Amino acid sequence: MNPDITRERENATFDVEKLTHILDGGIEKTKRRREIESLVISDPDFQSEDLNFLSRSERYDAAVKKSAQMILKLREYGISDPEEIYCYKSVFRGHHHEALGLHFVMFLPTLYTQCNKQQFKKWVPLAESFKALGTYAQTEMGHGTHLRGLETTATYDPATQEFVMNSPTITSIKWWPGGLGKTSNYAIVLAQLHTQGKCHGLQAFIVPLRSMNTHIPLPGVVVGDIGPKFGFDEVDNGYLKLENVRIPRDHMLMKYAKVEADGTYVKPPSAKLTYGTMVFIRSMIVGEAGHALAKSCTIAIRYSSVRHQSEIRPGEAEPQIMDYQTQQYKLFPLLATAYAYKFVGQYMNQVYHRITGDISQGDFSELPELHALSAGLKAFTTWTASAGIEVCRMACGGHGYSRCSALPDIYVTFVPTCTYEGENTVMMLQTARFLIKSYRQASAGHQLSGIVSYLNESERRLQPQSVSSRPTVVNVNDLASLVEAYKLRAAKLVEMAAKSIQQELQKRVSQEDAWNNSAIDLVRASDAHCHYVVVKLFAAKLGEIGDTGLHSVLSTLALLYALQGIQQHSGDFLQTGLLSVPQLSQVSQRLKELLAQLRPNAVALVDAFDYRDEMLNSVLGRYDGNVYEHMFEWARRSPLNKTEVHESYHKYLKPLQANL
Amino acid sequence: MNPDITRERENATFDVEKLTHILDGGIEKTKRRREIESLVISDPDFQSEDLNFLSRSERYDAAVKKSAQMILKLREYGISDPEEIYCYKSVFRGHHHEALGLHFVMFLPTLYTQCNKQQFKKWVPLAESFKALGTYAQTEMGHGTHLRGLETTATYDPATQEFVMNSPTITSIKWWPGGLGKTSNYAIVLAQLHTQGKCHGLQAFIVPLRSMNTHIPLPGVVVGDIGPKFGFDEVDNGYLKLENVRIPRDHMLMKYAKVEADGTYVKPPSAKLTYGTMVFIRSMIVGEAGHALAKSCTIAIRYSSVRHQSEIRPGEAEPQIMDYQTQQYKLFPLLATAYAYKFVGQYMNQVYHRITGDISQGDFSELPELHALSAGLKAFTTWTASAGIEVCRMACGGHGYSRCSALPDIYVTFVPTCTYEGENTVMMLQTARFLIKSYRQASAGHQLSGIVSYLNESERRLQPQSVSSRPTVVNVNDLASLVEAYKLRAAKLVEMAAKSIQQELQKRVSQEDAWNNSAIDLVRASDAHCHYVVVKLFAAKLGEIGDTGLHSVLSTLALLYALQGIQQHSGDFLQTGLLSVPQLSQVSQRLKELLAQLRPNAVALVDAFDYRDEMLNSVLGRYDGNVYEHMFEWARRSPLNKTEVHESYHKYLKPLQANL
Repeated sequence: MNPDITRERENATFDVEKLTHILDGGIEKTKRRREIESLVISDPDFQSEDLNFLSRSERYDAAVKKSAQMILKLREYGISDPEEIYCYKSVFRGHHHEALGLHFVMFLPTLYTQCNKQQFKKWVPLAESFKALGTYAQTEMGHGTHLRGLETTATYDPATQEFVMNSPTITSIKWWPGGLGKTSNYAIVLAQLHTQGKCHGLQAFIVPLRSMNTHIPLPGVVVGDIGPKFGFDEVDNGYLKLENVRIPRDHMLMKYAKVEADGTYVKPPSAKLTYGTMVFIRSMIVGEAGHALAKSCTIAIRYSSVRHQSEIRPGEAEPQIMDYQTQQYKLFPLLATAYAYKFVGQYMNQVYHRITGDISQGDFSELPELHALSAGLKAFTTWTASAGIEVCRMACGGHGYSRCSALPDIYVTFVPTCTYEGENTVMMLQTARFLIKSYRQASAGHQLSGIVSYLNESERRLQPQSVSSRPTVVNVNDLASLVEAYKLRAAKLVEMAAKSIQQELQKRVSQEDAWNNSAIDLVRASDAHCHYVVVKLFAAKLGEIGDTGLHSVLSTLALLYALQGIQQHSGDFLQTGLLSVPQLSQVSQRLKELLAQLRPNAVALVDAFDYRDEMLNSVLGRYDGNVYEHMFEWARRSPLNKTEVHESYHKYLKPLQANL
Repeated sequence: MNPDITRERENATFDVEKLTHILDGGIEKTKRRREIESLVISDPDFQSEDLNFLSRSERYDAAVKKSAQMILKLREYGISDPEEIYCYKSVFRGHHHEALGLHFVMFLPTLYTQCNKQQFKKWVPLAESFKALGTYAQTEMGHGTHLRGLETTATYDPATQEFVMNSPTITSIKWWPGGLGKTSNYAIVLAQLHTQGKCHGLQAFIVPLRSMNTHIPLPGVVVGDIGPKFGFDEVDNGYLKLENVRIPRDHMLMKYAKVEADGTYVKPPSAKLTYGTMVFIRSMIVGEAGHALAKSCTIAIRYSSVRHQSEIRPGEAEPQIMDYQTQQYKLFPLLATAYAYKFVGQYMNQVYHRITGDISQGDFSELPELHALSAGLKAFTTWTASAGIEVCRMACGGHGYSRCSALPDIYVTFVPTCTYEGENTVMMLQTARFLIKSYRQASAGHQLSGIVSYLNESERRLQPQSVSSRPTVVNVNDLASLVEAYKLRAAKLVEMAAKSIQQELQKRVSQEDAWNNSAIDLVRASDAHCHYVVVKLFAAKLGEIGDTGLHSVLSTLALLYALQGIQQHSGDFLQTGLLSVPQLSQVSQRLKELLAQLRPNAVALVDAFDYRDEMLNSVLGRYDGNVYEHMFEWARRSPLNKTEVHESYHKYLKPLQANL
């Protein structure tokens, strides 16, 4: 054990184990999580070479191997609870992806929810036994976010009772679905349904892609890998071009909409039912943002405690780089953010399960709010976490660029969450739509409830005259007071966005153009709303913590989170009259004090995330702090070191020397 | 040609070709640049498969091949002017690196400047004929920025007149130098010189690493590749452990310091002489930041003009995504920044050459200012450009993640500039040291000159009482007025940092601790100083533009750049009383107008950067806008598509299906 990191742990003022229980949601959950982690970590079948040493084809191969093994192991161990499966997978995947990910996340759930009874009986056993290896093909080369724009067609032919599937243009080629390129022999394909000369919009169809015996693509199916990406090396994201592929009528998923034998289209009863999965996945991503940032902070903070560099006081030994104020200012607010997002993730999970219960009883009333919240928070947390991972990486200096730090892998694996499952700017604008709608309702005298209820107050309290005359009451040492300030900022920015739309309308532009011409303000309002929600939930979490030591350190983190947000957005708080200039200096001063206060607990706070070395897979983030020996050992395994002299010497350098 | 992008070009209001001349520094330079580019692009020897389809070993192989070819070509074409060589190389490298980069950038220049006459005669011909393939080994596993901390030793043995080179600890192993792993047979090694029982600090030594005949590592030399990184796949960044390697006395570079035969150490005459290269490289990086951002903007803006998505007005066709205000707000300020950095790069280049002239005549007076300026601007521009590349990438939606967009390569190739040649936070603090020193001189009544002369005024004008009472005079439509505002902001933030140090000192902490406890404020002050310099230089450039059309569009860009900076740092401008709250609303409004104003010229403004398709190597950034056909074509060449069925199917999936 590195003595620096041992000393850090000795100086901590709280019980790390207890904090781990809080993060897991209880001592029993911690215990079970660790059992599952041990199953994976101690399993010799899962020992493999660092993926970074492999070619892309080898990485894909290794991922398929692992996925196949995992399926057998889960059955062997009898792990079937979704949360436990999730836990098992997140250990065995490491920072990477599962080859059969879409089969589990999209193919099976879509079959479960959109098959009618006969279809269920046929397809679910095939999928559960992996005879049908499936993916979900929605996105096309020319169409992502805007589903109505999708071009793939399914034209019903009553003569044969088949759908004829086509990719009529180059932009209609399915593009990006994971597992589509090489792995899947089936896909659920989203296509525009044409029957009896009319288009009825998007429906889902089960399309066989490859022979179930030979895995060779079927006639009319042009399928393959879309090529290397920024990360995701082990996934065969694919393309799919359909050329008059005929599938039987009962391959359209018919639980809701139907096409009868003669081609008659029968409408689905409600459109709300497909909402759920999307909301669930976005809620999960919020937790993932906390997870990715927590891993990054663990690596950067442990490394900062063992890395010595430069000097603060001349003549003294090189200090730990964590002693530099600038290093603390980079890392500690991100550490606070990681805690915040973990707690928000817990909250989203609870809300989701509560509302799902309501929905199954036919009560959809909270769905729009959850939809708006999950969209905005997904964007808010993934943007911040992505940028934060890079800050952590660069805070490790040169070694942060080495793949042995794991930080490059964490970044390229996480950053796509900014784009998939709803592009972030689009997500922010969806939340804004809900905020503006709520604001207008409040303005019209309706009493709002739920998370937007603050917009009721805004009508009363945020009149232009009152802003400047309202006495500033924010106490920068009091979290409740800061939550209030965030709330009023959100209210003010929602109001400003609404007024911008109003002003645009007065220029006689259309509603739609007024919206687009106010989009910058709308995103800003959503951002402020989400920021308020996060601060509020962090503060609420403190209320649940009884232990004094824990409460103290988490309060420091929460205060740091809130104050750093104020400093970063000081213009908003000054502009809206929520803070005065002298208070802003207090904020800066207080931030520095909080950094110093957190310094002795920094390592313990990342220890509490409880990532085992085998999960972090980072030389810089090792629990024992013995970084350099292991970096050397790792480097010696680099494929370029397999021979003393690389063949390029004989091929190019020796001839060059001879030529000159 | 895609009709959308054709229409964009038809709508431009200025002469693209003329703007290209300005960016190149004159019509003749444009002409010559294009000639050189054509040499590379039309050369069949340089045609190669996309590096993204290759394994790391193959990429390294391809890079060595290209470097060897390039050396012969440059001789064949008689290109010897450094600027022309730089141009040639930047085309042939693309977004990647040169295998022999360090040989040219560090090994040769160090020999040129630090050899004495006899050494020069021996080593320069060996290096110029590539018999000696060299690199520069400074950084160690445990030591980067802080040179005094380096641990490698060179102990003089008068008995044999040799230096004994050693890596005494694991942290002393040389780590990171490019070309060290496999390519080089020599290295200039920085080591602590020990002679006659005393350590005389760092000196440079020529150390043979590999046999000049067989390329096999010499006895005592443990050398290899440090393993895969975030980018730089084609470079063999290496490690070097020296175990009692003996080299003759005359392998120490002795132009300045010397060790005589008996071991007597002779001090160098001046320490300033080694300053120059560092300043030069940092100045170059500023230009590179403009370059990287310009390439990214070219890709994202061209793609945004041909990509259609969603809807603004219901019922109408999907609009070009560049019509969304949020997309404009992401890209156009970055476009303005790219222009700003290109102009700042030109300026740094001129200043460097002017000051180098002075230095060669013994006048070092301007060196500290240039040193401070290049350090801060290097940090300021590389941070912004790195984040900006990622914004451009994500503005391309899913396709920005494909390696065919080139944006991942641009990012991973550029982002290390934040860390190498001086870690950015350290750089900011070096600039801050100069600013604080200047501020103290001004406070003591000295009249400052040069770029910091504004600190003279600050003493007179920025007294606390005057800040609040000073009438706000900033005109948000007038660039000169905005330059003034940036200047006063910088002055105020330098003052605040100085006062923070003062306050710390009053707590009876040491100077060094006071500095560290104010580091956040110091970085902020440097940042504001650099921002002021960039705005000022952009405004100054406008003064050189005679053409009305060009002047108009560049003025719009400059105004956008200045106002967006104010919006992003609105807290500073409000806090220092430079702007009022109503003015801030004006800034937001004006920004939106400027976005709309730039919209018709966006494609033409990136066309003016004049990157040929072969240099961008981006399917999304193609000049003809025909994105989708070429993306499909590129994907089909993916190595995973070489076989219809991947071997993993037979190895893992078929057995799995049989097992269940």
